[in-house]
Amino acid sequence: MEKLQIVKAGGKVIEEKNKLEPFLDAFVALPGYKILVHGGGNKATALADKLGIESPMAEGRRITSAEMLEIVTMVYAGWINKSIVAHLQARHCNALGLCGADLNLIQAHKRPVAEIDYGFVGDVDLIQQQRVGELLRMDIVPVFSAITHDNKGQLLNTNADTIAFNLAAALSNVFEVELFYCFEKSGVLRDISDETTLIRQLSLKDFESFKSEGIIKEGMIPKLQNGFNALKKGVKSVKILKEENLHRSPFYGSELVL
Amino acid sequence: MEKLQIVKAGGKVIEEKNKLEPFLDAFVALPGYKILVHGGGNKATALADKLGIESPMAEGRRITSAEMLEIVTMVYAGWINKSIVAHLQARHCNALGLCGADLNLIQAHKRPVAEIDYGFVGDVDLIQQQRVGELLRMDIVPVFSAITHDNKGQLLNTNADTIAFNLAAALSNVFEVELFYCFEKSGVLRDISDETTLIRQLSLKDFESFKSEGIIKEGMIPKLQNGFNALKKGVKSVKILKEENLHRSPFYGSELVL
Repeated sequence: MEKLQIVKAGGKVIEEKNKLEPFLDAFVALPGYKILVHGGGNKATALADKLGIESPMAEGRRITSAEMLEIVTMVYAGWINKSIVAHLQARHCNALGLCGADLNLIQAHKRPVAEIDYGFVGDVDLIQQQRVGELLRMDIVPVFSAITHDNKGQLLNTNADTIAFNLAAALSNVFEVELFYCFEKSGVLRDISDETTLIRQLSLKDFESFKSEGIIKEGMIPKLQNGFNALKKGVKSVKILKEENLHRSPFYGSELVL
Repeated sequence: MEKLQIVKAGGKVIEEKNKLEPFLDAFVALPGYKILVHGGGNKATALADKLGIESPMAEGRRITSAEMLEIVTMVYAGWINKSIVAHLQARHCNALGLCGADLNLIQAHKRPVAEIDYGFVGDVDLIQQQRVGELLRMDIVPVFSAITHDNKGQLLNTNADTIAFNLAAALSNVFEVELFYCFEKSGVLRDISDETTLIRQLSLKDFESFKSEGIIKEGMIPKLQNGFNALKKGVKSVKILKEENLHRSPFYGSELVL
């Protein structure tokens, strides 16, 4: 099977120019088929604040009102996505900025209201893996923003880690997929304030015990859950790392193992 | 030669849901290859106002500061573009939202500073007509927002009428192109407040005299100039019409003739 590398980047990596440029250099240097998935939550929160729009979070996920949906779509699919595409094109990387509505690539449904009403948050139902594969074989580098749609005209806000997981899982039917979650830390840390406590290899069993001990918490939990789900769905490898180590050899970061 | 219809829509047509939906119904019903080009200036101005960012105009064009570039990219390439794509997908139209940076489809240069410094405004240099043609032949319907790039990492704000003209001119090498400029009025009016004064056919000669007499003025001048330039470049027909008349037969609006 041909190889495909899917890289998720978020936070400061994509929102600060001095971090974005070296990250994109490393991304462009990856050989073969590749996909970039990005968020942009901090910038969306900042814009919401300026406009006086509240954007509460619940369990690490953003509650998305109609106004907030407009903001995240503007920030993720507009400014951040197109800035990344322009920077990749300047590096002769044939990037195409996408959201899930484009070519109906990622179809989702609005999360049903349970204890929490998340508003316009979408849970992924379907990835058009064949169409994504066609784009890759045209030497196009898809750049996905964290916006999906319900195929009935409604855009939806979907967590970028989850989009990366869903793409990786669906495409592992036709590609040998490596999934990289890039963020500010070197990987999964025993002590979040101490980079030397990096866990080089994290098993599902350890993850469950670290979670119950409170060593792994907050936003890291859904990220790792997505990672382990990806492995269960046939993704070849899932790695959590600092963006600047994307091109480092041998690998430096945390690798998940079932 | 195969036919291609390029439709430019702007203003209230795309910013008001009750106008957008019937317009998209009419657009989807157009047979064969088609491209949609949109602006979104009113919404960009409204967001700039809310954020306390000034957005002065000069000769019908927006002076685009770095802050304003971020806003127009968010509004045009983000919210408006992806909303249109989602609505088209809901109509089983395989839309792909694009800006000029995507696949390097529209390359421009920052307008040199002369009497007026337009800031991050781009004048189009190059359309990748072959790539646009490939997308069309994949039964993809490109939806272009009015953002381009310089292929060196800089996004640029480019007038949507001008993008429609450049696409039409470039693609007329390989397609028989019809260009439609949709807006709020029935077409070019002798008296802007009286829809019965529609000019059904406007020659270049008449345009020049109406312009000097002040009958045609402001934003209509560059729109029509783009239209006549398109005819000179081999575009088969250029029509100015009210968006709700896109599907009306026989044609009701203004047709430009050289």
